[in-house]
Amino acid sequence: MQFNSEKRLDDGVLEREFTLGEIPGFLWTPRSASASAPAPLILCGHPGGLPMMYPRLAARARSAAAAGFAAATLELPGSGDRPRSTAAEQARADLRRAIGAGAPVGDEIVARLVLPLVEQAVPEWRAVLDALLALPEISGPVGYSGGVIAIGVRLAVVEPRIAAALLFAGSFVPRVMFDEARQVTIPLQVLLQWDDEGNDRQLALDLFDAFGSAEKTLHANMGGHTGVPQFEGDAGNRFFARHLK
Amino acid sequence: MQFNSEKRLDDGVLEREFTLGEIPGFLWTPRSASASAPAPLILCGHPGGLPMMYPRLAARARSAAAAGFAAATLELPGSGDRPRSTAAEQARADLRRAIGAGAPVGDEIVARLVLPLVEQAVPEWRAVLDALLALPEISGPVGYSGGVIAIGVRLAVVEPRIAAALLFAGSFVPRVMFDEARQVTIPLQVLLQWDDEGNDRQLALDLFDAFGSAEKTLHANMGGHTGVPQFEGDAGNRFFARHLK
Repeated sequence: MQFNSEKRLDDGVLEREFTLGEIPGFLWTPRSASASAPAPLILCGHPGGLPMMYPRLAARARSAAAAGFAAATLELPGSGDRPRSTAAEQARADLRRAIGAGAPVGDEIVARLVLPLVEQAVPEWRAVLDALLALPEISGPVGYSGGVIAIGVRLAVVEPRIAAALLFAGSFVPRVMFDEARQVTIPLQVLLQWDDEGNDRQLALDLFDAFGSAEKTLHANMGGHTGVPQFEGDAGNRFFARHLK
Repeated sequence: MQFNSEKRLDDGVLEREFTLGEIPGFLWTPRSASASAPAPLILCGHPGGLPMMYPRLAARARSAAAAGFAAATLELPGSGDRPRSTAAEQARADLRRAIGAGAPVGDEIVARLVLPLVEQAVPEWRAVLDALLALPEISGPVGYSGGVIAIGVRLAVVEPRIAAALLFAGSFVPRVMFDEARQVTIPLQVLLQWDDEGNDRQLALDLFDAFGSAEKTLHANMGGHTGVPQFEGDAGNRFFARHLK
């Protein structure tokens, strides 16, 4: 991992751009984080495209930092400045076509889009975790926050350093991953936008039901995909405070 | 309304037993409440039977008081020390029989049990509201918190002093009340226990969907009817702080 730039934001948060090999990412640490008082880490998921997602991710990271957490994110395969995959572009086009036609989105298209993304992204996020946890100002346990929910599910199953996850049920999950959801045992908070245009409410409820965790909470709010209320930021920080501190 | 006893609890909360006519009730006010700094009020709903419900209600009231709220509750018709109604007892027995037999609980039984309860209880809770808001140390706006959810729904529709409601979706709602749910416009937070033995999850989700409120949030947690996690107490206080202060 190589840091390429750093800047101190007006709330004292240190924002650093890095690359992990060829993959760009961001790390935000609260002013209080130090080798003698390392901050627990939250990995911030997103749908891909850091240049576009930056304002929302930075806002979430600064809110997390105000609650004492470090936060980091990594570009997804095939998004932002990373090379495109022909197969993924084809699946994405098929998905858009199905949604545009008002047709139900077939599980086959979802699997073709999401499974290769999960396969490629999860090892990258585990590698960035290795690099971040080697920094003296950052400590475990680690939380995962956001979407792509399928990436969060896989990480929750395979990565023992992830101790809690706040999952945004705002993207498709192939049916084959429901078996993985049953293997998740860490505490979960699941966000659902009740009227999410591009998402299937019943599938999200079924997925919530499938998770194997003894502590899981669903927070459903009104509005579309980007309408998650501000107060859920605080609720998320309190969830992580219960499980990461 | 007549106060029959008062005691100062160890956290400074003043607990008063009262009767409104023949109906027993409790009022809890935080130490800070005074004529110059009156506390906003939360009406605490429950399934009936104050002597049995007292420990849980007092715990909720003291948590609310720590967040600056006054809290009050009233015995329900046909419960605790109040006279029984033959029709209600019959409906309750039919409901128990249906649940015991593992049969789906017919809407007819639910309507026979719940509608007369709502008809009788709601005017009583409005009357206690008149009496409580006449006290100098208590102010509006008012929140309703808990069950019976059908009572909360009716109050939210007919009582303009109720500004926000935290509804516990842990009891049956007759289908005829879904039309009333559509008329609710105040901010709502709805608690659902995912594995509530005596309740219908799909009906609770349908009811949440039906509410007309622009701001409504569903908090679903694992476990049975009495398993609402402790952290939902804090979440409830924060919900009321957003809307009553």
